[in-house]
Parts: sequence; C-alpha cells; structure tokens
Amino acid sequence: MKIAVDAMGGDFAPEQIVFGAVRAARKYECEIVLVGDEEKIRAVLKHEKDWEQLGITIHHASEVIGMDEHPADAVRTKKDSSVVVATRLVKEGECDAVLSAGSTGAAVTAAQLILKRIRGVGRPAIATPLPTLHGVTLLLDSGANVDSRPEHLVQSGVMGSIYAEYVYGKKSPKVGLLNIGEEETKGNEQAKETYQLLKKLHFINFVGNAEGRDIPKGHIDVVICDGFVGNVVLKFAEGLAKTILKLIKEAIKDGGLLAKCGAFLLMPTLKKLGKRLDASEYGGAPLLGVNGCCIISHGSSNAKAICSAIGVANEYVKGNVLAHIRDTLAKEEIGSHDSEKK
Amino acid sequence: MKIAVDAMGGDFAPEQIVFGAVRAARKYECEIVLVGDEEKIRAVLKHEKDWEQLGITIHHASEVIGMDEHPADAVRTKKDSSVVVATRLVKEGECDAVLSAGSTGAAVTAAQLILKRIRGVGRPAIATPLPTLHGVTLLLDSGANVDSRPEHLVQSGVMGSIYAEYVYGKKSPKVGLLNIGEEETKGNEQAKETYQLLKKLHFINFVGNAEGRDIPKGHIDVVICDGFVGNVVLKFAEGLAKTILKLIKEAIKDGGLLAKCGAFLLMPTLKKLGKRLDASEYGGAPLLGVNGCCIISHGSSNAKAICSAIGVANEYVKGNVLAHIRDTLAKEEIGSHDSEKK
Repeated sequence: MKIAVDAMGGDFAPEQIVFGAVRAARKYECEIVLVGDEEKIRAVLKHEKDWEQLGITIHHASEVIGMDEHPADAVRTKKDSSVVVATRLVKEGECDAVLSAGSTGAAVTAAQLILKRIRGVGRPAIATPLPTLHGVTLLLDSGANVDSRPEHLVQSGVMGSIYAEYVYGKKSPKVGLLNIGEEETKGNEQAKETYQLLKKLHFINFVGNAEGRDIPKGHIDVVICDGFVGNVVLKFAEGLAKTILKLIKEAIKDGGLLAKCGAFLLMPTLKKLGKRLDASEYGGAPLLGVNGCCIISHGSSNAKAICSAIGVANEYVKGNVLAHIRDTLAKEEIGSHDSEKK
Repeated sequence: MKIAVDAMGGDFAPEQIVFGAVRAARKYECEIVLVGDEEKIRAVLKHEKDWEQLGITIHHASEVIGMDEHPADAVRTKKDSSVVVATRLVKEGECDAVLSAGSTGAAVTAAQLILKRIRGVGRPAIATPLPTLHGVTLLLDSGANVDSRPEHLVQSGVMGSIYAEYVYGKKSPKVGLLNIGEEETKGNEQAKETYQLLKKLHFINFVGNAEGRDIPKGHIDVVICDGFVGNVVLKFAEGLAKTILKLIKEAIKDGGLLAKCGAFLLMPTLKKLGKRLDASEYGGAPLLGVNGCCIISHGSSNAKAICSAIGVANEYVKGNVLAHIRDTLAKEEIGSHDSEKK
C-alpha cells in the first residue's frame, strides 16, 4: 500500500503534514510519497533520521494551491501543484490513495477531474465521521457539493452505507435522512423527494428521517444531507465544542480556589473524554464517488490528525470500498443520468 | 398589557404552562389569559391561591391540536382549539400577544391565517435567541418555512435587525448570512442570490457571510438562513449540548473518587455556566412577519421557560417591534410580490 500525501496543503504545512506522515509510516504497514517542494520537505525530514528506512519517498511538485484560490481555475492551471500531482499518482496507479489538508475545493475538484466520477454517481460526497454518544456517525455530504438533487442524496446514502459496512464493520448500517421532522411528509421539496426514493431501495437499511438532535445521539450510522447543510452543521459543531470548552475554562478561572481544585481533580477524566471527542483522532474524511481513494483532512490538521487520516486511507483501501461502491452502482438501478459528464 | 397563553400546548401542559404563567404574572406587569380546558386549568390553579389577584383569567377553549396533527388541516377544522382561540384574542384586540408551546406548525399557521402577514412580508420567520460567548445571537428562520426564496431571507434579515435593535438595544446590529464560506461567491444558488440582495440594502448592517462556527462565537447579532437549515442547526445544538453533558456525567461516574470530588467542588461553577447556556432562560422565540406578537416556545418548556417566554412577549410589545417592522417595510423597497396572498 502506497499513499500520496499533499505535503504543502494545510495551515501547518509542510511541518505537521510531514511529521504526521512519518508517524503513520511507523504505525501502519504502508509506504508514503510526500508530494511538494522537495527542499522544504527535506528540511523537515532532517529531524527524523530514519525516514528513508520507513518507506517514505519524496515526489517533487513546484506549485501550491492556496486556500483563497478558485478551486476549478487553480486545478486547471497549476498542473504541477502538490494536490494535482498527488492525485495524478493515484490515477496512474503509482499510489493507492491521496490525502490533502489543503483547500477542500481544490482536492475535490482535482479528484473529480483526474480520477473521474464512478459510473452512476452524479456528485461525489465527503463523508465525515462524527464522534457521538455511541461510536461514530458518518455525515455526508459535508461540503463537496451544494445544490444537490434528490438522486445525489440517494447515491450518498448508498455510498455511506457501504463505507460504514466495510470500514466500520457495521452489519446493515442504519441510514437516516437529515430533516426537520420524523414524518415522511416533513421537510423541503428536496427532502421529501429523497425520502420517497430512499424508501424504494431495498438493499440499504433506510430508517427514515433523522433530526438535528439525532446526530450526536449516535443511534443512526449514516446521516445524509446536501453539502450546504452538512457543511453548516459540521462547522457549527466545531464552533460550539470550542465555545463550550472556552466557557468552562473561563468559569473555572472566575470560580475561585475551590473550582480550581475541582478542575485539577477532574482533569484526567476530562482529558480522556476530550480524546474521545477529539476530531484529530478521526483525522480524515473520504470523498466517496470518485475512482480512487481521496481523503480530505481539516485545514488545521496537526501531525496526529494527519497520521489518523493516513489510517483512514488504509482502512478504505483494505476494505475495498471502491470496488464495493462500483459493484453496487453497476448492479442496482440508482444511477444518475448525468453521471457520464465530468 | 395582556397576554394570551395557550395552556394546552406543550409536553407538560397544562401544569407547567399554568405555573409558568403564574410566575410571570408575579414578575412582570401584565395580565394573563389562560386559554384552554377551563376545568383542567382550574385544577392546576387551585395550587396557587392568589391567582385571581394576579390578573390571571381563564378563557375556555374546548379543543386541542396535537403534535402529530397536520397543522393547516387542524387549524382550519378545530376552530375552538386553544391555539386558534388564543391567536384570535390578539386579532380581536383583546390581547397584545399570544404564546404557545404546542405544535409549532399549528401556532405558525394560526398566526398566518388569523393575524395575516405584514404587508411586504412573503414568509414569516421564527427568530430564536441562542446563547453565545458574547451575549445572544438571533437565528432566523429557525423553522417556520422551508423552501424560502432569497427575498424571504432578505425580509428575515430586516426583521431580525429591527428586533435586535428594539428588544436587545443593539445599535446597528450586525446581520450575517449563514453560508459555507466567507467569500460572496460561496454557497448554493439561494445563498448567492440572497447575498447580492442584502448587499444593496443600506438601512441594515449586513456584514457578509457567517459560517456555522460563527454562530456560537457571538460576534454577529442576527444570523439568517432558511427554515430547513435553521431548524437542523437548532435541534443539532440541543442534541449536542445534551450529549456533551451526558458524556461528562458518565466520565465522572467512571472516573473514581478523585473525579467525583472534583465534580463536587466544580458544581457551583458549572451550575452558573449551565444557567447562562440554559435555553429555558431565554424561553421563547418570536414569529416575525405577522400582524401581531406571536411567541413560540419549545415543546418541552417548563414553568421557568414559559415565564421567560412571557417576558419575551413583554419586550416585543414594549419595543414596538411590530410598528417598526411595518414602517420599515412600507418605506423601503424590499417587499415580496406574493405578500398579498394569505
């Protein structure tokens, strides 16, 4: 197994990306190709003496796509950018997966243009694992596409179900449609139409509508929505978790000696809990629906998050997710009519 | 000031509704009309000996609209239901505001059919106050309408801004559009069109796009979105807060004696923080855009939440919110073309 890592993408690139890759090379049985400015990558790698024995190589790429560039334009013009070159390594069979913590739009566009969509998929979707009261819930699409049509949401449901089965080992994963009420007549036009389409599919375990409050409860394995809603929810969760933490810290600070003693005694417990909820433990979100494994990491990923994301790539490849999605979409009649377009 | 309270709506009706009304009658300078099954209301009121001296009266209504009934059908057929009768009291000038913790759909429909929309408003919107790091942020629409058009979102922005100014006393409130990125080219078609319309309005302080993570930070006073997204976010916040609390409790339980001592010492601090974040402290969300003050409360409202919601009704009426919205929409060219329909 060989994984192409965009060493230049992310708020803390290349340092944290390279250190994360080294950590993953020690932890998982896989080779890693660091793609980007060779000189800068070497400058980080010199802190890790044994890197060459770990199966790490460097693939030079002279350009970088910035967070503020227009994704489609940048991917088309910057042919030698790290994310484009890394994605091409998968297309050419050199690598089994690509990982980027850079511009999500650029990584998604590169995957769509270079790897192309799987036959039968109208819109690829980002499947983000969210920690919940009971294990992990997969939320998709969490931002690859806005303005999705009902059949795209159905395809997301199928792909998410396959991913949850072959990567998390869940038998007959529960798939829910994110909506504003439980009844099938609830919601906007998109949700109502999607519900009717999902009801007809007998090869996934569609359990009906899921409300916002159902996501953190964790009793639904796969929650589907369009990328606009998914992205808002994901960023809201991030902001809310940070705000609650900040408020607790402020309250302890203002709470005097007793509160400080209490906080000290509670610290190990809260740290353990924090680890369980820490996004960097989950690290990466697969882009489902393209012909290859593409993992999207958060822009603020540190070495630990990158290492986890490489773990996700490993599981995706070992679970044969791509083949399962292809087979299912070829066999079942849920294909999108525009799936032949780029 | 006289407020009509739907005594039969809500998970804990009529008990908690009636107790909340009594509490509010003691706290605020207002009379309260409890609308619903007279016998049942009296049975609760007998625990409060001085209720007649508090300016509380009962207005009998023989029917109740259940949570699972179709709102429009139920409002049309159950003419003597508590929420319909309470809303009619406002229409007839008997009361200044109506409050319900029953079916949100029924309360919204009753307000639209009986009070009618303000001229220039295409869709009324529920404005929910959310506690944040810095005071309260108003999220609207949080569930009155799905499938809104850009001009409806613009109207929400204007109404939210007026509410934040005259109820929270914020000068030139910051209005943000909920979206998936900061740049004006980001988002789905609805968000992009809304952005362009908002940019042209010079009488509100539109500060651009707000991402999900901006809501809990509290640096934007009014966040606008369609009712589908708003409702998902609101219920997600509710679920996430409950889940985090549950996880902390579990962790403390599993954390042994030291953790328990720590939790004990921290308790007063956490309780104070909990109060700050407690939705029942905020209580009610106004439905903006109808010709009258209509306050929507959460189905699970307890007496404290109902009392707070009556406080919200008070502030709405004292702030002359309705007149300000009417004047602004009459003066400025943002009216909806379908505003003349019911």
